[in-house]
Amino acid sequence: MAAFTSHQTQTHFLSKLPTTNKPTRTKPIVTRVRMSYQESGPSLAVVGVTGAVGQEFLSVLSDRDFPYRSIKMLASKRSAGKELSFEDRTYTIEELTENSFDGVDIALFSAGGSISNKFGPIAADRGTVVVDNSSAFRMVENVPLVIPEVNPEAMSGIKLGTGKGALIANPNCSTIICLMAATPLHRRAKVTRMVVSTYQAASGAGAAAMEELELQTREVLEGKPPTCNIFNQQYAFNLFSHNAPILSNGYNEEEMKLVKETRKIWNNNNVRVTATCIRVPVMRAHAESVNLQFENPIDEETAKDILSKAPGVVVIDDRASNHFPTPLEVSNKDDVAVGRIRRDVSQDGNYGLDIFVCGDQIRKGAALNAVQIAEMLL
Amino acid sequence: MAAFTSHQTQTHFLSKLPTTNKPTRTKPIVTRVRMSYQESGPSLAVVGVTGAVGQEFLSVLSDRDFPYRSIKMLASKRSAGKELSFEDRTYTIEELTENSFDGVDIALFSAGGSISNKFGPIAADRGTVVVDNSSAFRMVENVPLVIPEVNPEAMSGIKLGTGKGALIANPNCSTIICLMAATPLHRRAKVTRMVVSTYQAASGAGAAAMEELELQTREVLEGKPPTCNIFNQQYAFNLFSHNAPILSNGYNEEEMKLVKETRKIWNNNNVRVTATCIRVPVMRAHAESVNLQFENPIDEETAKDILSKAPGVVVIDDRASNHFPTPLEVSNKDDVAVGRIRRDVSQDGNYGLDIFVCGDQIRKGAALNAVQIAEMLL
Repeated sequence: MAAFTSHQTQTHFLSKLPTTNKPTRTKPIVTRVRMSYQESGPSLAVVGVTGAVGQEFLSVLSDRDFPYRSIKMLASKRSAGKELSFEDRTYTIEELTENSFDGVDIALFSAGGSISNKFGPIAADRGTVVVDNSSAFRMVENVPLVIPEVNPEAMSGIKLGTGKGALIANPNCSTIICLMAATPLHRRAKVTRMVVSTYQAASGAGAAAMEELELQTREVLEGKPPTCNIFNQQYAFNLFSHNAPILSNGYNEEEMKLVKETRKIWNNNNVRVTATCIRVPVMRAHAESVNLQFENPIDEETAKDILSKAPGVVVIDDRASNHFPTPLEVSNKDDVAVGRIRRDVSQDGNYGLDIFVCGDQIRKGAALNAVQIAEMLL
Repeated sequence: MAAFTSHQTQTHFLSKLPTTNKPTRTKPIVTRVRMSYQESGPSLAVVGVTGAVGQEFLSVLSDRDFPYRSIKMLASKRSAGKELSFEDRTYTIEELTENSFDGVDIALFSAGGSISNKFGPIAADRGTVVVDNSSAFRMVENVPLVIPEVNPEAMSGIKLGTGKGALIANPNCSTIICLMAATPLHRRAKVTRMVVSTYQAASGAGAAAMEELELQTREVLEGKPPTCNIFNQQYAFNLFSHNAPILSNGYNEEEMKLVKETRKIWNNNNVRVTATCIRVPVMRAHAESVNLQFENPIDEETAKDILSKAPGVVVIDDRASNHFPTPLEVSNKDDVAVGRIRRDVSQDGNYGLDIFVCGDQIRKGAALNAVQIAEMLL
């Protein structure tokens, strides 16, 4: 899995934790033939390469044998000059500047909203197609907000090799994971309302948050007060409302992303969504409890069948052995897992379903989805 | 807090973990005058005294200065003969038998459903009022299912000193915590539908589960495979669907308790409830994300006002500082905390609210509620 090592950062510190149960794969894994990166493919840039998602970009590019003829490793001035090994080569991390994008075909951004706001348009102006993981452009009109399995058509106007750059936004992790499971059901029976409660991992707040969760856990087990640098309270053996700012309607920004991004991705302003976003002491995969109301009837067996055939989705729903999706099982995995698929007893007939979804926040929730968007450009 | 010590058990092993933020108390704490336990009060029995809830029964009895003239410490044969200190006295734990209840006025049971099923009716036949924490009698007709702040009228026919025994059931922890917050709103605007997602602590599976979570966490941090005795999978840094058996409708028993107990407690078979119950790596307090639909309009400010005045409820809802209820803050506390009170944007007008509730599973979710029921008998 670790296709790269960095001499300077060590963010995958817990990725080697034992994963006791492996998810059941119901669909075959496609093995790709590796193309030489020196001969073909676009020139790439990774912006924010030292971060948790930046590193995962590299991991996913390698895992998926993404073709490229060159790759620029970009980060802040602080990291510039440091060396980074990737696919048997050593790269020197470069400082992100206005001139970083000359000759770059595709740039994968994950360096926070303010960096994206400043450098995304600059890159696009110079002919680069930017796939941005921040929230900067998600709700901007004419910027496609894309989950490749859900709405690939949204980016149909964007092509490589035309000299014309563009911005494409990667949805928020919670939205991606939710809609990977909800969309196949929506296509069949049309979702009218969705009530989502999330169980979000530390990774969504970055590598430092994962480190703080581990540090705090050690401290609490030793009877020491927990170090609170990233979060303002104890996270170990605790959970709390997502730390995103609260808006005037009482929702936090994370929750309103689910509300608004769902409408944009489904191109449907009538779908009603509410969400409660909670941070739980889990490392790198999110879980979501999703209650669905439909315009048309859809029974439990049909839902299971549809989901088991949906690309990027794996059904884990073994009632007899009480085996359902868990964050640990989907960690470092591409597929979003869905289970607890059942008719909602609080709704009439077959107009409601409850499901439980888990997905790797760094992978499908961020880096994988962005790389899949880039693949669609090839 | 620790009014007792046991030479044999050590279940409060993590109760001394630092609680960094104390909940804001909006209501005054009533200080009671201690009555001598030798002079007045009923004779008590605690069944399952060595368990997590059994020990909490003693802690709550002491904290609340519950009057009693005698107290029997009952447990299985395995624990019989062991000594236990409580309120400056040393007790010898007695084996639970059919003859344990002679002269006992009130018995607090928390020893599992099969013990309750066998010994509850025996005790009631001998004139004891049984307050049972198991699920054995909750849905039995004519057995009151009581949350003192919610439906005290359900047990109005039961009196001490009449020579007539009775069974009273303590609701499931998730139901108690949910309804402590939902009921004051239901009284004002009538809840028609409720969508609940839980974040349940280890304590709900007993003291051994809490110990396993701690052990597993240490093991995972040391890079060792986690010990899985109580649960069949890794719990540390993970979460999973509640381990209760799955019923034919796809819900697990824990979820259907919320559905059915709500109807019985509210004496309303029309209320529609769905629930998804998830176990999270937290020690002893549950959290619940609750989406409410109402028959009559109720705005956010009215809801906050009602909840801030509700007995046994504390509102923690500071949007500016992002301070809301957490399991850690309510651990070892009596009050259920509610926050994230906001108008549901997925519903029209003021007919919907989202709230987030936290309550100590062992205390209000079990022992405190049972002792409050016993107090109503005095």
